[in-house]
Amino acid sequence: MTIFLAELVGTLLLILLGDGVVANVVLKNSKGYGSGWMVITTGWAFAVAVPALIFGSYSGAHFNPALTIALATIGKVAWAQVPIYLAGQFVGGFLGAVLVFIFNYDHFKCTDSQGDKLAVFCTGPAIRNTGINFICEVIGTFVLVFGILGIGAQNLTNGIGTLFVGFLIWAIGLSLGGTTGYAINPARDLAPRIAHAVLPIPGKGDSDWGYSWIPVIAPIIGAVLGAVCYTMIM
Amino acid sequence: MTIFLAELVGTLLLILLGDGVVANVVLKNSKGYGSGWMVITTGWAFAVAVPALIFGSYSGAHFNPALTIALATIGKVAWAQVPIYLAGQFVGGFLGAVLVFIFNYDHFKCTDSQGDKLAVFCTGPAIRNTGINFICEVIGTFVLVFGILGIGAQNLTNGIGTLFVGFLIWAIGLSLGGTTGYAINPARDLAPRIAHAVLPIPGKGDSDWGYSWIPVIAPIIGAVLGAVCYTMIM
Amino acid sequence: MTIFLAELVGTLLLILLGDGVVANVVLKNSKGYGSGWMVITTGWAFAVAVPALIFGSYSGAHFNPALTIALATIGKVAWAQVPIYLAGQFVGGFLGAVLVFIFNYDHFKCTDSQGDKLAVFCTGPAIRNTGINFICEVIGTFVLVFGILGIGAQNLTNGIGTLFVGFLIWAIGLSLGGTTGYAINPARDLAPRIAHAVLPIPGKGDSDWGYSWIPVIAPIIGAVLGAVCYTMIM
Amino acid sequence: MTIFLAELVGTLLLILLGDGVVANVVLKNSKGYGSGWMVITTGWAFAVAVPALIFGSYSGAHFNPALTIALATIGKVAWAQVPIYLAGQFVGGFLGAVLVFIFNYDHFKCTDSQGDKLAVFCTGPAIRNTGINFICEVIGTFVLVFGILGIGAQNLTNGIGTLFVGFLIWAIGLSLGGTTGYAINPARDLAPRIAHAVLPIPGKGDSDWGYSWIPVIAPIIGAVLGAVCYTMIM
Repeated sequence: MTIFLAELVGTLLLILLGDGVVANVVLKNSKGYGSGWMVITTGWAFAVAVPALIFGSYSGAHFNPALTIALATIGKVAWAQVPIYLAGQFVGGFLGAVLVFIFNYDHFKCTDSQGDKLAVFCTGPAIRNTGINFICEVIGTFVLVFGILGIGAQNLTNGIGTLFVGFLIWAIGLSLGGTTGYAINPARDLAPRIAHAVLPIPGKGDSDWGYSWIPVIAPIIGAVLGAVCYTMIM
Repeated sequence: MTIFLAELVGTLLLILLGDGVVANVVLKNSKGYGSGWMVITTGWAFAVAVPALIFGSYSGAHFNPALTIALATIGKVAWAQVPIYLAGQFVGGFLGAVLVFIFNYDHFKCTDSQGDKLAVFCTGPAIRNTGINFICEVIGTFVLVFGILGIGAQNLTNGIGTLFVGFLIWAIGLSLGGTTGYAINPARDLAPRIAHAVLPIPGKGDSDWGYSWIPVIAPIIGAVLGAVCYTMIM
Repeated sequence: MTIFLAELVGTLLLILLGDGVVANVVLKNSKGYGSGWMVITTGWAFAVAVPALIFGSYSGAHFNPALTIALATIGKVAWAQVPIYLAGQFVGGFLGAVLVFIFNYDHFKCTDSQGDKLAVFCTGPAIRNTGINFICEVIGTFVLVFGILGIGAQNLTNGIGTLFVGFLIWAIGLSLGGTTGYAINPARDLAPRIAHAVLPIPGKGDSDWGYSWIPVIAPIIGAVLGAVCYTMIM
Repeated sequence: MTIFLAELVGTLLLILLGDGVVANVVLKNSKGYGSGWMVITTGWAFAVAVPALIFGSYSGAHFNPALTIALATIGKVAWAQVPIYLAGQFVGGFLGAVLVFIFNYDHFKCTDSQGDKLAVFCTGPAIRNTGINFICEVIGTFVLVFGILGIGAQNLTNGIGTLFVGFLIWAIGLSLGGTTGYAINPARDLAPRIAHAVLPIPGKGDSDWGYSWIPVIAPIIGAVLGAVCYTMIM
């Protein structure tokens, strides 16, 4: 299996499960409607951990352009491979979002709030403030990449490391997700946002393009800082 | 222990614990009444993982005709054994549902909603739409079987693989369970539905036979697609 | 460390953490007040799993007279040791309950409901019905002992088996705890009930002695049936 | 990496994630606002477990002066190293709290309750009672240190031990956190309390210095008792 396909299918599963849990919680009449932050963060944790286990041996299971770029920066991924990774991640993220749309079509129809429909696909700030929103995504992604490198350095039995990566995602969601919704991944945010823009979602609003650059640029900066900082101090 | 008995007892435990958690959440006056989606999905995750660990070495711990048929399709189970597997699964599923009925008898008595009583036994759509409900069950079971094969390919230490299968079930419930209730298993849905039809449940309504074919046919299609797709791309 | 001391300290921790989580959820003004069934079942799962890991090598970490008697019945524990186990379990259970009382003293004072105060210490039925309550405790303990034997037979890496025992307890609580509160352990129920009777709990009611024999006798029968059944079919 | 730096960065992450989850739950308009005790205790469990895995090989990952002092008391840490540990822990705890303040700045602004703003940084009693509050923190930290030593003695595969330490923190939060908020760590409580006092938090109240000595002194006593008791009986 090529890196491109592994990243594509892995990111597709990530978004199908990750955006899927948001749909379950925020769209009307879903069986998980209103079930809250514990459900959302647990869903995202496994949405990362399960595909990470399955595709780890094929591509390293990045599913995240910020992580790929950070690993390239510290020499753990060849720069020539970065475009391959990113292509797989964005295509997979877009296709995953399309599946979430089809899966929950009737629930999009009966949900009134345009904001809730957008929230299924991509993140938005609880309180809009460019500077602080940016810092939140930098810090969240810093912790993500620092944590992934730190876990990876332990030479754990196969599976245990992935378990802790799942806990790391869970922790970031629980503790650092309340302000901006923890995009911490440009493909997780931008690819489904494009899907939101082009799909015929009943009664949808705009795709909040004014905010869209933050969950792309800030995670890349946070990831690179996290990787560089990790290699400097550890 | 024969494959038949392992699948029977394992599926019995699966339904006792899985339908049991639904009973705890939806039946009146139960101590877990109204405790929500997190409780239901966590309960089902362990309802699969614990019996899977115990019976894995005897039968592979399918507990699911869709999984058995998918594994036969890709040559991992002999077709001659498929009827043995399915017989164990359906008998076990029926007996598990009988135990759930006895266990929660007084709570069935004091629950008014006929829909909630049926929900203990089998799944139903949040919004009835044959096409989309069907697609949801196909996608959910596709992810189940693709994930099981992917986890199985990692040659994990005994127990760690089962742990991730539990996470996979948890993820499917959290992220893909909101529309149809994630049957993803014909024995889990049809056998308890038959139990609902024949048991003297106080004040029960009909068993929604009009919907009953979807959580049988769609999971089989999704499972076979998942297994074939996995063997093609991985 | 002797078996007596291991069972005493382990059961003390079990009750301190297990009855402690109930106190946190049901007593007024506690920070976890009203946080529900997920908190209670998660708390009990770790209340078993952590002490089980620590004391497993000293005594097998039963903390449960029903388990001890069941293991003696199938020849895995010498009958001569059974009184030592039970003595440790009951003394530990009583002392754990005393600590829970001291720990939450002010919250007992400001809680009005006598039923909630009793619920911290011991179980009671959601709907009182001797026959069905008895059956529920038999089934719950059957699953407990069958599961423990099944997990133990896997020869898992140290720690992984205990992890699954924790999942088993979690599953029993989520799925089989809604009717009687899953005592599934005479020492967990009777020893704290005695503590409730003798401690100077502000504004307490009676200790519901009419029900008290069910969570003693039924778990023993369920445990023995589970152990015998396991050895017969596996 | 030096012990000082490992303890500093580890404690910084601990407080960023731990105080972060409290901020997410108690500050107005956060996406996790009002999501309750399950979110808080899960967040703190991973806030300990993930950094503990990453920094364990550098410093033992104490992140807690009470644990360091207790280990020194039983001869597992040299007394000469204790000041180095404590310096790292308090500096890290302070810096972590500063990050939590920046991260959630807009949510501090729109939260009215001075008590909730303080609760992000440090613990306070549900019912103020010096004697019992003190006992609660002694018991909580006793269980923490006794449990850490007991888990450590099992020689578990790398990662599994840390997993159980996470479960231990989760258990203490669920079961023993309802009365005083389970500081069980002087650096976790005092360093962020100092941050609360010096940071320009909009509309903040006082830092409750009258209570502040309890989550410093009581955890040290509980930890030393736990360590001494463990070495005596095990």
